[in-house]
Amino acid sequence: MSHSLDTLISFAKRRGFVYPSSEIYGGFAAVYDFGPYGVELANNIKAFWWKEMVQKNKDIVGLDSAIFMSPRIWEASGHVGGFSDPLAECKQCHTRVRVDQLLEEVGVQADEKMSETEINALFGEHMKEVSCPKCGGHEFTDAKSFNLLVQSNLGDFTNDGSEPVYLRGETCQGIYVNYKNIMDSMRVKVPFGIAQIGKAFRNEITARQFIFRTREFEQMEMQFLVAPADEMTWYDVWKERRWKYYEALGINMNKLRFKQHENLVFYAKEAYDIEYEFPFGFKEVEGIHARGNYDLTQHTIHSGKKLTYRDPHTNEEYTPHIVETSAGVGRALLMLLSDAYTEEDLGDGDIRVVLKLKPALAPITAAVLPLMKKEGMPEKADEVFALLSEQFRCEYDDSGSIGKRYRRQDEIGTPFCITIDFDTLTDGTVTVRHRDSMEQERVAMSELMAYIKTHLTTSSS
Amino acid sequence: MSHSLDTLISFAKRRGFVYPSSEIYGGFAAVYDFGPYGVELANNIKAFWWKEMVQKNKDIVGLDSAIFMSPRIWEASGHVGGFSDPLAECKQCHTRVRVDQLLEEVGVQADEKMSETEINALFGEHMKEVSCPKCGGHEFTDAKSFNLLVQSNLGDFTNDGSEPVYLRGETCQGIYVNYKNIMDSMRVKVPFGIAQIGKAFRNEITARQFIFRTREFEQMEMQFLVAPADEMTWYDVWKERRWKYYEALGINMNKLRFKQHENLVFYAKEAYDIEYEFPFGFKEVEGIHARGNYDLTQHTIHSGKKLTYRDPHTNEEYTPHIVETSAGVGRALLMLLSDAYTEEDLGDGDIRVVLKLKPALAPITAAVLPLMKKEGMPEKADEVFALLSEQFRCEYDDSGSIGKRYRRQDEIGTPFCITIDFDTLTDGTVTVRHRDSMEQERVAMSELMAYIKTHLTTSSS
Repeated sequence: MSHSLDTLISFAKRRGFVYPSSEIYGGFAAVYDFGPYGVELANNIKAFWWKEMVQKNKDIVGLDSAIFMSPRIWEASGHVGGFSDPLAECKQCHTRVRVDQLLEEVGVQADEKMSETEINALFGEHMKEVSCPKCGGHEFTDAKSFNLLVQSNLGDFTNDGSEPVYLRGETCQGIYVNYKNIMDSMRVKVPFGIAQIGKAFRNEITARQFIFRTREFEQMEMQFLVAPADEMTWYDVWKERRWKYYEALGINMNKLRFKQHENLVFYAKEAYDIEYEFPFGFKEVEGIHARGNYDLTQHTIHSGKKLTYRDPHTNEEYTPHIVETSAGVGRALLMLLSDAYTEEDLGDGDIRVVLKLKPALAPITAAVLPLMKKEGMPEKADEVFALLSEQFRCEYDDSGSIGKRYRRQDEIGTPFCITIDFDTLTDGTVTVRHRDSMEQERVAMSELMAYIKTHLTTSSS
Repeated sequence: MSHSLDTLISFAKRRGFVYPSSEIYGGFAAVYDFGPYGVELANNIKAFWWKEMVQKNKDIVGLDSAIFMSPRIWEASGHVGGFSDPLAECKQCHTRVRVDQLLEEVGVQADEKMSETEINALFGEHMKEVSCPKCGGHEFTDAKSFNLLVQSNLGDFTNDGSEPVYLRGETCQGIYVNYKNIMDSMRVKVPFGIAQIGKAFRNEITARQFIFRTREFEQMEMQFLVAPADEMTWYDVWKERRWKYYEALGINMNKLRFKQHENLVFYAKEAYDIEYEFPFGFKEVEGIHARGNYDLTQHTIHSGKKLTYRDPHTNEEYTPHIVETSAGVGRALLMLLSDAYTEEDLGDGDIRVVLKLKPALAPITAAVLPLMKKEGMPEKADEVFALLSEQFRCEYDDSGSIGKRYRRQDEIGTPFCITIDFDTLTDGTVTVRHRDSMEQERVAMSELMAYIKTHLTTSSS
């Protein structure tokens, strides 16, 4: 069943997944907060990625480099010089627009390498066709390059802005500049990978589509370092592994596709995106790139430090080539919400909203529901909560009818509802109600932990 | 056994826990990166805190608000107006110094509420006694207030700096401004808590003591909202719970103490720090504060939104009071390294370095060590790695003598070393060698997972 982005946005807010930032102060553009269920889902996504990418691989190590680094790193990477979008302003309502996006909407493709003069010539040709997204006007100022790196005054006590310090625009630079530290302190041998989860920031002119493109976002990146001759072999390996990762996440694979990049940057050997079909169309959820030795070479030149590797068997010395896999936490969360959100028609106008997440990813694994607030049921429910919360994220809910409580848990994707009733008091069993099938089973409290563990590993509740 | 901070710093770098930032570019002050073992330890600390604070409590929900928020929030909180340190400059070598710290070193206590004029009068009186930490000079410029909030140009496309946007100086403001969202979307009732882990930033003039005080840092904060009359009762509950938390972390409790705040801010009812005895003395690792209704009242005034709570039983309406517990990830990691780092004299000049972390917190739970790189041992070791890495962070090491490999794992705190040898090939058993006792046991591969799970829950390896 298909649903609109607006449905997801209002669902995400109403059920505590995603809140607009600073709402009581009138909002703050292009930034969102994860609510209680959102943070649990995001944590589960990150833990799943870390397990698949770091924990289960002998040849990948983790890293957590800081958001702030020497500004020289961003000169070496090319971001200070070239990481910019063409920005113009509507003459009528002063809305700021991205010229390349306006042109794209009328079927004109601007090349990323165009100079300001070139893009303004193209913009001039088509200015009558494009229109302001806010007021519909057709008159704009000339486009100016606007750098996407966010600047700050960290460590700048003169406050004259003469030496801006940047918030990182991507996490991978923290990996490249720690290559030497890792080689010196870890017993790694090429080929091996370095994986990192962390925030990055971009001054996006037009942030759109809810949490799909935000100015503050979190990346999950892995850089795999290989011998030059092996780059494309490893590229194919990672392309396949990353595709299978989405199967393991429980995504509807009919909604995923590979999209090859047409305009490769000069150093790249190959680049594919994995795209998911969001309510607003197919959009990138991951990039897989064969980057050659560009990154480490740039840092060798700019830092003056040797960043080569000597193969212990062949004695060959080279600058490692890099295969990169790069995904975003916010996009993964939006993809999962989008994929899992289901409205089931149970007849007689009864619509059941169910978030059919893979059970292991659900924000709450088990809801503990005492049938009544008396007769010793709360005490038994406390026992069950204490037992299960040692290993699972649980929720305790004692208000409203059991039917309503089940539905509330369905909406947030809880795979198991545990009801404590009169029988619990006499025979020590509870009712386990399953999210997807809505079937119920009696299970002894003593076997409950094992029961949930077993059922968590199956693909649906 | 006592050890110096320098020992810890060099250990942390050599063994992949903490690297100085941007080292190949000559460094970047007051920021550090977590290496492969550092990120695992930090992740374990965060997961432990989340489990104790969120997962195991019926009445606490999580949150992950963004680093960026409306600048008006920092006006409401008082940070724009008053969150500053007195900054002066040595006339001889131009080193920037914090005047209150210089005065403290000669036994003079500057009050936080002093105006620039007042602190300069005090500074003038004692200027001959204090000396520049770099050149030893005694001549300084007048002190000027320097605001600790880090400013940025996020979302500022005019780039004229007229409306600075701040990186958050503390995570708790994200909790306060989401109080209404959480009340509207979650079924919470006062008393309840909101917990959050996330980065914060401060333009510290003099960042010191390794990762103890950095300009970029990560906080673990919980705000517990209570009825006005219950504030001090809950304060005592959380003061006790947070003390016990450090026992559960496996810290040597003789190195911890409570320190009561002497100068309370006007709205605070009570404030204690938990201090740990670092190599550089007793320093704060956590603050526990009874904050009254100051925070929500400020946001009510500045946002114009009603942030009260109506008790469903008594119908009483009030602005909730807040008990806060606030700790730092970096400080917790430094405390754990400091507490666990041990040099054992085994005689004949043989010093064994062991990181005696609580086993469940160790960066690597199990090392998989094939005795030889042939005879089918690597294949069996792969099997063991695949088995254990489903649930634990493991490391595969096949180089050097077994004795050397054990010692490498001791240094990073790995509780279990699993050796695959000739017997493994014939009877399917492996040797499990324990970190602390160095004792060895034969365990069947089929029972290995259960064996490790059981032994992980004991307090030492």
